[in-house]
Amino acid sequence: MKSKSRLAALFCASALAVLVPAAVQAAPDKAMESRFDAMIDPAEMSGWLKTMAAEPNQVGSPHDKANADMTLALFKAWGWDAKIETFWVLYPTPRDLAVELTAGPGAPFKATLTEAPIPGDETSSRIKDELPAYVAFQGDGDVTAPLVYVNYGMPADYDQLERLGVSVKGKIAIARYGAGWRGLKPKLAQEHGAVGCIIYSDPRDDGYSTDDAYPKGAARPANGIQRGSVADMTLFPGDPTTPGYGSTKDAKHLSREDSPTILKIPTLPLSYGDATVLLRSLDGPVAPPAWRGSLPITYHVGGSETGGKVHLKVVSDWSLKPIYDVISTLKGKGLPDEWVVRGNHRDGWVFGASDPLSGHVAMMGEAKALGALSKAGWKPKRTIVYTSWDAEEPMLLGSTEWAETHAAELKAKTVAYINSDSNSRGFLGVGGSHALQHFVNLVEADVTDPQTGVSVRDRLRAGLAVAAAENPGNPRAVAQGKIAADPANDLPIEALGSGSDYSSFLQNLGVATLNLGFGGEGADGGVYHSAYDTWEHHTRFVDPGLAYSGALAKVTGRMVMRLADADTPVQRYGDFADTVAGYLDEVKKLADAKRDEAVTRTRLLASGAYRLADDPTISRGDPAPLPASPRLDFGPMDSAVAKLKASATAFDQTLAARGPAMTPAQKRKLDAALLPLEQRLLRDKGLPFRPWYKNMIYAPGRFTGYGAKTLPGVREAIEERRFDDATTYIGLTAEALSDYAAGLDTATAAINGG
Amino acid sequence: MKSKSRLAALFCASALAVLVPAAVQAAPDKAMESRFDAMIDPAEMSGWLKTMAAEPNQVGSPHDKANADMTLALFKAWGWDAKIETFWVLYPTPRDLAVELTAGPGAPFKATLTEAPIPGDETSSRIKDELPAYVAFQGDGDVTAPLVYVNYGMPADYDQLERLGVSVKGKIAIARYGAGWRGLKPKLAQEHGAVGCIIYSDPRDDGYSTDDAYPKGAARPANGIQRGSVADMTLFPGDPTTPGYGSTKDAKHLSREDSPTILKIPTLPLSYGDATVLLRSLDGPVAPPAWRGSLPITYHVGGSETGGKVHLKVVSDWSLKPIYDVISTLKGKGLPDEWVVRGNHRDGWVFGASDPLSGHVAMMGEAKALGALSKAGWKPKRTIVYTSWDAEEPMLLGSTEWAETHAAELKAKTVAYINSDSNSRGFLGVGGSHALQHFVNLVEADVTDPQTGVSVRDRLRAGLAVAAAENPGNPRAVAQGKIAADPANDLPIEALGSGSDYSSFLQNLGVATLNLGFGGEGADGGVYHSAYDTWEHHTRFVDPGLAYSGALAKVTGRMVMRLADADTPVQRYGDFADTVAGYLDEVKKLADAKRDEAVTRTRLLASGAYRLADDPTISRGDPAPLPASPRLDFGPMDSAVAKLKASATAFDQTLAARGPAMTPAQKRKLDAALLPLEQRLLRDKGLPFRPWYKNMIYAPGRFTGYGAKTLPGVREAIEERRFDDATTYIGLTAEALSDYAAGLDTATAAINGG
Repeated sequence: MKSKSRLAALFCASALAVLVPAAVQAAPDKAMESRFDAMIDPAEMSGWLKTMAAEPNQVGSPHDKANADMTLALFKAWGWDAKIETFWVLYPTPRDLAVELTAGPGAPFKATLTEAPIPGDETSSRIKDELPAYVAFQGDGDVTAPLVYVNYGMPADYDQLERLGVSVKGKIAIARYGAGWRGLKPKLAQEHGAVGCIIYSDPRDDGYSTDDAYPKGAARPANGIQRGSVADMTLFPGDPTTPGYGSTKDAKHLSREDSPTILKIPTLPLSYGDATVLLRSLDGPVAPPAWRGSLPITYHVGGSETGGKVHLKVVSDWSLKPIYDVISTLKGKGLPDEWVVRGNHRDGWVFGASDPLSGHVAMMGEAKALGALSKAGWKPKRTIVYTSWDAEEPMLLGSTEWAETHAAELKAKTVAYINSDSNSRGFLGVGGSHALQHFVNLVEADVTDPQTGVSVRDRLRAGLAVAAAENPGNPRAVAQGKIAADPANDLPIEALGSGSDYSSFLQNLGVATLNLGFGGEGADGGVYHSAYDTWEHHTRFVDPGLAYSGALAKVTGRMVMRLADADTPVQRYGDFADTVAGYLDEVKKLADAKRDEAVTRTRLLASGAYRLADDPTISRGDPAPLPASPRLDFGPMDSAVAKLKASATAFDQTLAARGPAMTPAQKRKLDAALLPLEQRLLRDKGLPFRPWYKNMIYAPGRFTGYGAKTLPGVREAIEERRFDDATTYIGLTAEALSDYAAGLDTATAAINGG
Repeated sequence: MKSKSRLAALFCASALAVLVPAAVQAAPDKAMESRFDAMIDPAEMSGWLKTMAAEPNQVGSPHDKANADMTLALFKAWGWDAKIETFWVLYPTPRDLAVELTAGPGAPFKATLTEAPIPGDETSSRIKDELPAYVAFQGDGDVTAPLVYVNYGMPADYDQLERLGVSVKGKIAIARYGAGWRGLKPKLAQEHGAVGCIIYSDPRDDGYSTDDAYPKGAARPANGIQRGSVADMTLFPGDPTTPGYGSTKDAKHLSREDSPTILKIPTLPLSYGDATVLLRSLDGPVAPPAWRGSLPITYHVGGSETGGKVHLKVVSDWSLKPIYDVISTLKGKGLPDEWVVRGNHRDGWVFGASDPLSGHVAMMGEAKALGALSKAGWKPKRTIVYTSWDAEEPMLLGSTEWAETHAAELKAKTVAYINSDSNSRGFLGVGGSHALQHFVNLVEADVTDPQTGVSVRDRLRAGLAVAAAENPGNPRAVAQGKIAADPANDLPIEALGSGSDYSSFLQNLGVATLNLGFGGEGADGGVYHSAYDTWEHHTRFVDPGLAYSGALAKVTGRMVMRLADADTPVQRYGDFADTVAGYLDEVKKLADAKRDEAVTRTRLLASGAYRLADDPTISRGDPAPLPASPRLDFGPMDSAVAKLKASATAFDQTLAARGPAMTPAQKRKLDAALLPLEQRLLRDKGLPFRPWYKNMIYAPGRFTGYGAKTLPGVREAIEERRFDDATTYIGLTAEALSDYAAGLDTATAAINGG
């Protein structure tokens, strides 16, 4: 599914690269990489894409299975040891749907819930196996109630609603897509007492405001629908009925009612063509300025008995369905029990050309070239595992069930997991484990950007520098521009949240992880998860000629080869230590800001300022008082970060000085110390409310979904004013970091022959 | 015409109040003020408003003259010595207009250019004398050319257009209202080679995005048109053909062609109903994100031969017309040659209920009460002059011609000028001479807010505090919130630019000036300068019951009475000194930022970063290089500000200590020293390009129009990279401030008996 990358997203990266002494990197085999590049053929990728995106290929569709079989056959033909691994997962499909305006202005009206074929896009006419408007893992139901517009449906929106005196209790919430992960919208609506939820695509966010509607331009047309999953990813991904273990053939499943990640209220997505009629029917307060989209209406909040009333009905088939992961291996020669794992999902919501097949065909291109190199005599030192995931869209099912099934082996053997998903055009976005930041920079510097002819890294550097110059009021852009301005500096990579198949590896298993994709220029947003995400759209508007799928293959293929053949570790741990130190500064400032906010709120409430400041003709009560915020003791984290910095510096310097001279035995010992190192960032207890998420450094936000929260146990506790949790997780996070530092010390000793 | 005040505008005030020892203020006569308040009757004001706004009352209309006669008669009846002073000004009126789409998608189409009556608004049906779509002092013409969308038509928009490879040369520019004064749009279009200009009201800015369209809500309906003046206010206001002198009966007029403030290209305003067809016809690049309004279209920039082509025609009657200022006097008893002048304009663009009559009826209420107090025995110490200006809308004609005609007398006699214009609901906004800031605060503290029952000042304090809490990312809001948080602090007043009748007094004559009005809650923006600015709209949506016209009368009436009767000066000069010191800090930081920007631009151009960062499928060339920015020597201003602070502190302290004990002779001497003090801020040379603007501290921006630029000679020179001018005006501004400080020293000596 992938949270869409844009150049703007680059500003969100929390990590700032800082110069530390560079560890000596084992020289990659540039000649072999040139041979690899020569075999990367975007035209061939475009052909694969056209075939695989020719029919709807969501889970359970005939074409999904056909694509698995095709992938299996190709990998075998390319010389890989390939197999299909099948899981049996809960995967609901729609049986009976309705959204109707039953009362209020514009009633009666019945929403279409389907996407008509688009003239000039032949693929979009193949509607036989197409899903209608649907979101997976909503809660079936049949309700009729007044409608309330809740903007993006995020927590701050409910704060505003409360002050406007409008409640969603007993009503149906209509939220627009954007500003946070889809699944949070019905979840928060449900928590606030709504009996149903509708999510629509406002043209301000990805429709005619952004570009001409497809097919004239790339933007979402009036009947375009964004499907997706609303299983509660923030608790755990994977099959909602097999939490923490694999959905193998005979696995025990929780009942649907007992699964904490399946919603209780019916929810459907809507096109703006359908939604306009519903929104136009609302009365009540005019929506606050930031809530207003681009429909030619006055946005009202609604919720009254005189405004629109909606009938929402969803009945699903809740049977188990088989899903097909294609797992392919090139066995390592020297270190077969050290694995480099590479993955991309294969299932789409409909045709899935951009999402996910543009990334999948890049991975296929890599696999074909690696197979050819292997046939020509190259044998990787470590084992390479390529994974074509099924059922990512409903909630990372294919990767999660596989990772849970093979957890022990993966923890013992995986050097790194490299993920991609839908790919676009422009700038390379990279997120993941910050010890790999320097490695990423070295690879980026060796791959040429298809449009400009400079390296991918130089293009990104220019992008960051210009973005900083053009956004002097954006502190993060300015900070990144400063880093980018000096060519000696590495460019920062981002922290990962969720939204693609890396999640289990990074956040549950503790495997070093990278997630990569190009973006910022290709216009894929307007057809995201719709029936118009087709080969035609992708090759016209997103990545003509699949040039950037080719570039992605060159980046990720290099990473795989370098990791597989590395003679000494590619990591530079000082980058991780500096990044974590930056996160610690952020959460300290956050704690100060939260304390100031509480003090101010108390003062303003006591003085009656809110009532005096409010327009008395718009009903806004006082905001809720905030509990007093204690001063938190960050001492344990200060010590742990200091220790981490010292250990990381010692390791990086020792590796640089003595790494090349290590004996094979020392190298094995070093590998053994480093391979499981990232697991030391996990704590068994996991994060509050969600023990599946065990990584104390990186997690998807409880209230952002895709977006990462770093030092999540601490940061979210402060954000949500759970100050006891904050103290607990200051301790746990400090413990994890100290543990990590101790692991580094062991590795340093290994280099020193200890 | 008035630049619309909103709570948001409060954040724009540059001045920060700082505690200095308060000068002892002569105790106002609170008993008399209570008697005054008791005579303020909003219901009576509503009646006057209904009568005066019953017919179109623009310059030259029969109802404009009728309103002048009514005002004259009432003032006389209330006991004032009143007369009409007539001027003969150039005032163009439309004879033949056309906007037509002649080619491109949607052609042919003919714009309506009129505003149909609104059901339920009886006034809007009285269309006999109504002006159609028109802007005064555009340049007549008849052109047909391709259309280009230029967003708000401000300088930064043209920078973007250039990088998109689109030019307006030989074309017609269509700009939306907002983000800068109306007249800058055709002026900049003309300077960039456009042959015509259209200005339309986008629903994002004041239409259905902001509220339901009138009559359901307050917002601009589909056929609502904003009229206005486009005479080049940034050069000088008043009759374009009598620059710097009064348009008396026999005055010599420049030819229209020779007037620098009359445009050369035809220009018309348009409703969004008409504009939608034009904008929909455009092709070429998709408009940048910030350019997109709320019409249900994809905004394109246009400018091509295949997109829309427009026929624009304007023929005007350019004859001279009479205008009628009503000037009314209550002669002072002790100091008849010291005048307190109070004004509000009377002419509207159509019915003018909010703009300007809501402020005019407040002034009438004050005048009636002052007249009654006078009849009952009160005689002000100083002379009070009430002015009902005509012809403000076409470009401050009534006030400017009067001020220019009586310049010498006004400079010799005027203690202060107090202005208002259209009035709304909510928070009191005050701008003007900062030596009066403390005086303003004392008055605000004594008037009750009609909605909350606390003082006007306490309500504003609460508004600023809450705005700061709710906008933690807005540095100005946060700074003002900090000031507001301490009840001992005065609240800052704003600097004045232009847009209402205070301009001549403040910026050309050097008279201490205040401009006041309530706003932030009443919704007047949607009918601004349209035929729907009616009594019906005003009393439904802007100020029901005219409660805030009543509050305005109590505020301004108190100011007039206190200034007229003050025994010792009401000024506190430390406030002015501190405010200027803040401005100096700002321009220093601005100079640093401009230098950094040039360095960065040079570096990025040299490295080719712009080309690398650009999407190659969207044509954007390199931005223009910036000239190297020298380090400016602010030494003269540092010295002058230090001297000003010292002199101001000495004055304030001396007045506090010894003021009450002054002899009548000392008081006269002190008055004589202080009355012309603000004139020391003027320099004969005036500002670059516009010698009419002589005030070195306050001016309307060359590229903002209504918006103020403080230390304008210096600030705008730096903004526009005229570094030689910056140095010249550092010198001139320092000279003005030193002169002012010397004047203060003379005043201090007067208190001391020197």
